[in-house]
Amino acid sequence: MKISALDPFAARRALDGVTTVAGLDDDAIVERYARVVWNVVTEPGDGVAGRLIAALGAAPALAVVEGGSVIAPVEGVSTREFAEGRRRWSPRLRSVDVDDALALARARGVELVCPDDPAWPHRVDDLGPHAPLALWVKGEAAALASLTPSVAIVGARAATSYGEHVAGELAAESAGRGIPVVSGAAYGIDAAAHRAALAVGGTTVALLAGGADRPYPAGNGRLIDRIAESGAIVSEVPCGGAPTKWRFLQRNRIIAASADATVVVEAGWRSGSLNTASHARALGRPVGAVPGPVTSAASAGCHRMLREFDAACITSADDVWELVGLEGDSSQRRSGSMDSRSRTDDASRVTDALSVRVWRGADDLARRSGMTRQQVEALLGVMLLEERVEHGERGWRLRFATS
Amino acid sequence: MKISALDPFAARRALDGVTTVAGLDDDAIVERYARVVWNVVTEPGDGVAGRLIAALGAAPALAVVEGGSVIAPVEGVSTREFAEGRRRWSPRLRSVDVDDALALARARGVELVCPDDPAWPHRVDDLGPHAPLALWVKGEAAALASLTPSVAIVGARAATSYGEHVAGELAAESAGRGIPVVSGAAYGIDAAAHRAALAVGGTTVALLAGGADRPYPAGNGRLIDRIAESGAIVSEVPCGGAPTKWRFLQRNRIIAASADATVVVEAGWRSGSLNTASHARALGRPVGAVPGPVTSAASAGCHRMLREFDAACITSADDVWELVGLEGDSSQRRSGSMDSRSRTDDASRVTDALSVRVWRGADDLARRSGMTRQQVEALLGVMLLEERVEHGERGWRLRFATS
Repeated sequence: MKISALDPFAARRALDGVTTVAGLDDDAIVERYARVVWNVVTEPGDGVAGRLIAALGAAPALAVVEGGSVIAPVEGVSTREFAEGRRRWSPRLRSVDVDDALALARARGVELVCPDDPAWPHRVDDLGPHAPLALWVKGEAAALASLTPSVAIVGARAATSYGEHVAGELAAESAGRGIPVVSGAAYGIDAAAHRAALAVGGTTVALLAGGADRPYPAGNGRLIDRIAESGAIVSEVPCGGAPTKWRFLQRNRIIAASADATVVVEAGWRSGSLNTASHARALGRPVGAVPGPVTSAASAGCHRMLREFDAACITSADDVWELVGLEGDSSQRRSGSMDSRSRTDDASRVTDALSVRVWRGADDLARRSGMTRQQVEALLGVMLLEERVEHGERGWRLRFATS
Repeated sequence: MKISALDPFAARRALDGVTTVAGLDDDAIVERYARVVWNVVTEPGDGVAGRLIAALGAAPALAVVEGGSVIAPVEGVSTREFAEGRRRWSPRLRSVDVDDALALARARGVELVCPDDPAWPHRVDDLGPHAPLALWVKGEAAALASLTPSVAIVGARAATSYGEHVAGELAAESAGRGIPVVSGAAYGIDAAAHRAALAVGGTTVALLAGGADRPYPAGNGRLIDRIAESGAIVSEVPCGGAPTKWRFLQRNRIIAASADATVVVEAGWRSGSLNTASHARALGRPVGAVPGPVTSAASAGCHRMLREFDAACITSADDVWELVGLEGDSSQRRSGSMDSRSRTDDASRVTDALSVRVWRGADDLARRSGMTRQQVEALLGVMLLEERVEHGERGWRLRFATS
């Protein structure tokens, strides 16, 4: 029997206890079941399946694949792509696999979240046809919906104690300020980030490359259980699925897509964390890297990001806030030597009239500060001596603050 | 007697043994002597004096100042600026000061180098009216002329052993490859850079804030002597001059101006090294910063440069070479996972057709590589699995190389 021929009653029974069924009409139930089928038969990030489902809906798309006929023109899917896709999907198009995945999820307490559920993290929709078709969640599905804003903190498995310390600091301060921390539950940086977020009672979400029922790596099993207690363990791979290399790379795209910004704390020259950063960049999301000693191989990937990727240099939680697009305390710190307590009123007026980027002439500054040119120039002279301004051919500007 | 009334014979006698006099006619001798007078009466970086000399010549400008009349219109110098300048310069306009400076230089073996001498480092001319009027050199004046290309390696006095190690590595590799190292002879990073350059038999030049005859800091006296033996100790301040705060800041502008690029190895949040970097940036010269642990206060200024200054992230001598505008070994290293030994010919053709920045469609890549679209897509599929390319809405591009 073709899977696409499943009646609404059987579909509802199969889904019940694993995902939302209440309030869904027969069409919605069949559509949701078909989405699970697609999730089971495809590997993560299958863009042809994504485009086919976007164009036709999951159930009609499934019927077309099972129908055996040549595809009618579908937006974004060529005949050749469809034929190749069908060859990829057919070997897995067995209802027993779908039923097994759902039964396993039910038995393990793993919830299925679909794009029309309230818990769906809509940031991942930016992946377009490569967005996950569904997410399997162990723990609090609501944590997924809380990821706006959020930050992904990732890094090397072979982390140093320096890297783990910094990852912990950044995660604790972020989670402590109410910014959930997304990571991959790997050894090293990922684990340090999750642990610190948990320690401050913050929200943390782990994306796994294998099934959400399979704690991986096994050595982090206890940590993964704790994450599920207050946050969520998430995977697009159905329960029982093994964490293959491909799935790790695709898992990285969901980490990048579900957070507002991605920060890499330590990474070797070719670390997989750079892959996550790549995905974030491809999505137009801000990317940051924590510097470290240039003598440390564990920081080489971060320095590479600073140099080749134009990643932001992250040295504190304030920088993370700024990266995520929130106001940190850094603006105050950044005002540099212009300590408001030590400024005279007149000097503040000149300071306010100055720019750090644009050169301004004394006349312009006089106009902007509402003072005479003579007053302005006298103050500029003092500020030049104090190294608070610089003077060039095109006028004056605020100096990068030094002692 | 007015200094500007000095006859060529007396001027020649005063300069002999300190600077070039052979081959200079009477006018040139008087002009050179007047330049020394200007150098003695002004503080470093006096732009009004610089513009006056540029417009009139040193000797005529001196005559105007000593003449006591109101200035005739001079390009770039207002009547007010001239009057203020005269008030600044007059107290020092005593021939005894000039004679003392020259006598001291002669006694201490310090040579005077002027802009028309072969040893003059013409990069400093980029400072325009703020360029030094003359430079006093102890050691090999020829080292000054060798500063193209060169790199300034500067940093905190309160350096860590990490910073001194990295400064030493960068300086040794730069000087060892024939790139002179410019620095400020201070404790910490500066000293480590000079020492390493000397250790590999390379050229190094130290700019002092006080007179070239006054080793400062005294604790680096032995190092400063060694620099003078093969390189040069340089100052624009006449012999005997004290290293004042203002002169330190102005000294920094010469460090920045005489090198092709400035690298800061360690710097506190408001380190004076950031002032040197500021000058380099104002001159449009490349600026680099060496990252360090974010937990180290000695690296805070460097991280600030990376973040606020858009400084290049420097992790090796290759990066220094690149900054200076030379080809390092880095291009090879940077080619990332594209190990030429492991590439098949066809894959190289596709790789060569791909860009890291621009997305290209399969048809475009087929055209560029001279292969069929089918061949290209098959290879792209493999490369996607190997994470060597990324695929987006607008096509394909080379991926930031990872494992």
